[in-house]
Amino acid sequence: MSEKLAVAVLGAAGRMGSEAVAAVEAAEDMELVAALGRTDPLETLVSAGARYVVDLTVPDSTEANVRFAVEHGMHAVVGTTGWDAERLGRLADLLETSPGTGVLIAPNFALGSVLASAFAAKAARYFESVELIELHHPDKVDAPSGTAVRTAQLIAAARAEAGVAPSPDATTKALPGARGAEVDGVHVHSVRLRGLVAHQEVLLGGPGEQLTIRHDSFDRASFMPGVLLGLRQVAGHPGLTVGLDGYLNLND
Amino acid sequence: MSEKLAVAVLGAAGRMGSEAVAAVEAAEDMELVAALGRTDPLETLVSAGARYVVDLTVPDSTEANVRFAVEHGMHAVVGTTGWDAERLGRLADLLETSPGTGVLIAPNFALGSVLASAFAAKAARYFESVELIELHHPDKVDAPSGTAVRTAQLIAAARAEAGVAPSPDATTKALPGARGAEVDGVHVHSVRLRGLVAHQEVLLGGPGEQLTIRHDSFDRASFMPGVLLGLRQVAGHPGLTVGLDGYLNLND
Amino acid sequence: MSEKLAVAVLGAAGRMGSEAVAAVEAAEDMELVAALGRTDPLETLVSAGARYVVDLTVPDSTEANVRFAVEHGMHAVVGTTGWDAERLGRLADLLETSPGTGVLIAPNFALGSVLASAFAAKAARYFESVELIELHHPDKVDAPSGTAVRTAQLIAAARAEAGVAPSPDATTKALPGARGAEVDGVHVHSVRLRGLVAHQEVLLGGPGEQLTIRHDSFDRASFMPGVLLGLRQVAGHPGLTVGLDGYLNLND
Amino acid sequence: MSEKLAVAVLGAAGRMGSEAVAAVEAAEDMELVAALGRTDPLETLVSAGARYVVDLTVPDSTEANVRFAVEHGMHAVVGTTGWDAERLGRLADLLETSPGTGVLIAPNFALGSVLASAFAAKAARYFESVELIELHHPDKVDAPSGTAVRTAQLIAAARAEAGVAPSPDATTKALPGARGAEVDGVHVHSVRLRGLVAHQEVLLGGPGEQLTIRHDSFDRASFMPGVLLGLRQVAGHPGLTVGLDGYLNLND
Repeated sequence: MSEKLAVAVLGAAGRMGSEAVAAVEAAEDMELVAALGRTDPLETLVSAGARYVVDLTVPDSTEANVRFAVEHGMHAVVGTTGWDAERLGRLADLLETSPGTGVLIAPNFALGSVLASAFAAKAARYFESVELIELHHPDKVDAPSGTAVRTAQLIAAARAEAGVAPSPDATTKALPGARGAEVDGVHVHSVRLRGLVAHQEVLLGGPGEQLTIRHDSFDRASFMPGVLLGLRQVAGHPGLTVGLDGYLNLND
Repeated sequence: MSEKLAVAVLGAAGRMGSEAVAAVEAAEDMELVAALGRTDPLETLVSAGARYVVDLTVPDSTEANVRFAVEHGMHAVVGTTGWDAERLGRLADLLETSPGTGVLIAPNFALGSVLASAFAAKAARYFESVELIELHHPDKVDAPSGTAVRTAQLIAAARAEAGVAPSPDATTKALPGARGAEVDGVHVHSVRLRGLVAHQEVLLGGPGEQLTIRHDSFDRASFMPGVLLGLRQVAGHPGLTVGLDGYLNLND
Repeated sequence: MSEKLAVAVLGAAGRMGSEAVAAVEAAEDMELVAALGRTDPLETLVSAGARYVVDLTVPDSTEANVRFAVEHGMHAVVGTTGWDAERLGRLADLLETSPGTGVLIAPNFALGSVLASAFAAKAARYFESVELIELHHPDKVDAPSGTAVRTAQLIAAARAEAGVAPSPDATTKALPGARGAEVDGVHVHSVRLRGLVAHQEVLLGGPGEQLTIRHDSFDRASFMPGVLLGLRQVAGHPGLTVGLDGYLNLND
Repeated sequence: MSEKLAVAVLGAAGRMGSEAVAAVEAAEDMELVAALGRTDPLETLVSAGARYVVDLTVPDSTEANVRFAVEHGMHAVVGTTGWDAERLGRLADLLETSPGTGVLIAPNFALGSVLASAFAAKAARYFESVELIELHHPDKVDAPSGTAVRTAQLIAAARAEAGVAPSPDATTKALPGARGAEVDGVHVHSVRLRGLVAHQEVLLGGPGEQLTIRHDSFDRASFMPGVLLGLRQVAGHPGLTVGLDGYLNLND
């Protein structure tokens, strides 16, 4: 019988952190050995015997947390934002001194969302037209959503690489805004509706056919299967991985 | 056994007209007594014994066609555009001199589209949020579509009458166009995609729930059930009716 | 300025009841004067000055609760199940003795769901084909859902009354279950999927077109706008009303 | 400048064949050198200088056609059904004698459909629940569709290989057929609706999220981009390839 993974959660009192605490506790192959809040000392990770660390804290503390983990040979799964190129570079350097240790930094742990973006980019090379609709609750302040912008950029890059022409569009007479925003040439439409959470639809069209890839996020719980998958695989991926798709077997 | 309706089609050589000819011929309760092209004299309607006329011609000739029909006591079902307030007024005056005759002028004969607009307007009073997405083939030159603009206007009027507040929207940071066009305060998004024909989706949202009313038009054939329904009911609706919804029992 | 409605909630400790307590407290035109649990005496309604009662209790106690309310001239909005024909008959008799009092008994307070069913029944007369898909979380024990069965029955009744032929179906070779369950001749398909809550889609098809009416219930909160609408209108509908659609202006 | 591909179409008088003739003629990088009907001799392929053959004939003649092409060093793209294991084996043997020649046999040339199936199988490993809905016109005699059965089998195989548990289902009380047909443990629902052509939706659900992959086929034209892609790539894939997905770069 295989031993359980000894997992510590940093940021355990936050919204995401408390979900992670519950998810790790519920996972049969894991043991929660520590759940740290803002003021708890990192040394607790060592005394508790953590081998895996989930960081769901804030941009100000995430880098120090992850460096501490790596310096003590612990693998880390990181959902905190704020990892710019400089921080990633420093972390990659550090990981070279600890060759068996793995770190996963992911802006998005919802498996469905990660898969939807990857599939959309793959498919976008084969269709004449592609547009994107994202739908969120009306309290959201930015439009389009960050995920939609990233997906549109991935799609645009895949089409550029494959030499696909821009999506055809004969519009000559339009009300301002009707055709949406353009992100690298991809039209993106943002719907805001009470009752919704976070939803995204990529529409691909060719002669006589349409392919639609839609992701619905109903609840923060949607991130937890991705966090658990990260924990189970991070030791098998030494070094730095950015993006959960690096762990998904999309190429089988 | 009831007699068959004696129907003549004007504009029989056009795309819509030829569909109508086929639809009337296939209807068991109708007989096609005449199918006139551009150069055929209207007197043929009389000699052929037409009691019902379907006008699917062009804006330049539709008024004369319909007046001829009314003057000869024939009921008319009209799908041609170009009927402005002045023309409608003249026709209403004429119909007063022929009290048993009915005329239906409908910008849209697709039953599903007419029902979708009517339902959307009814429902819009009960939801905090409403937005509209219309999707068409990429050869369309205008955005939003005329049907979408009309639907948005109906929705806005229904909400104004019921005293509903505008749909909430916290957006403060948006790419130009992301939130669509505004028609009387209703956000409308226009997608253009190869492979599509004509599609429209009204999204209504309230706390914890969403109502979606979608219409897909795949083919010009979608207009024919509405034309046949118009023919079957026009004699029972003497005078002028504008819009197929006037014949649908939406209030049972 | 109009006075606030004095509302009492029965079953206030339950899942629905506690949502109702919060919704009434948040409504600017209402005042919560009592929130009763299982063991609280009904006399509290009188001493608290309740004029409106929301009953969200259990089948065993709902009849006594509503009778108490009516006998004291309080209007009642009832979401509890268990009201069979016998109970409804007794209640109607009682209401005749209190002609100014209104009672609304509704199996479903989600406005979107009630509207979707009503629209589906209206539209079903005009389309050759109609089928129903309902989608729920996988912990649900019955299939199809009660709402789907009721919607299918409404659709079947509307088609029968209008003399519409059964939906065409050339299937001669099918795996068992592929074509779904039949409810009064309407095909109903039940999907069970982790992540979902309660969703229903009515598909109507005619030559070249499709009309889709979909309702998504993401959260119990979706019932509260219907409860509040019931409270605001119950005094204007004296006597017994069954079904929230009786209060919706679907026939304007 | 690269030379044009010299293409012959077999079965040119059929529905698919005539579409292929038009598509090849419209492609700027191809030249149609022959379009053969049932009674035309295969030797015409040689005299016309065909280097590529599209076979869209009937099961009775497809094997002889393809063997003739291979024996003359022509690459072949085949959309005809009837290629069982025995025929495929014989063809593979023949191709060993002509090592530079490529043959693509594909049951489905709609790029969107092929991509949808591939994506569904990839994603099915990561979700707790998966079900399938296919929707077709009501003149279809079999349910579920062949494509739906194949997609369900691919999904089931991918889940079995990854050790995923069956989709959860607490149903204990169901009307017959409500939960659909089971194909290798995957629930499949078949909708038949006037107005539709061929549509398929794979629903994948996990805690708090849903991924939906939908393909709509509106028109036979949807097969042509796949046929052209096959022609452009078949020379670069010597030997036998079964399934268009073998030519799609799904693993980049």
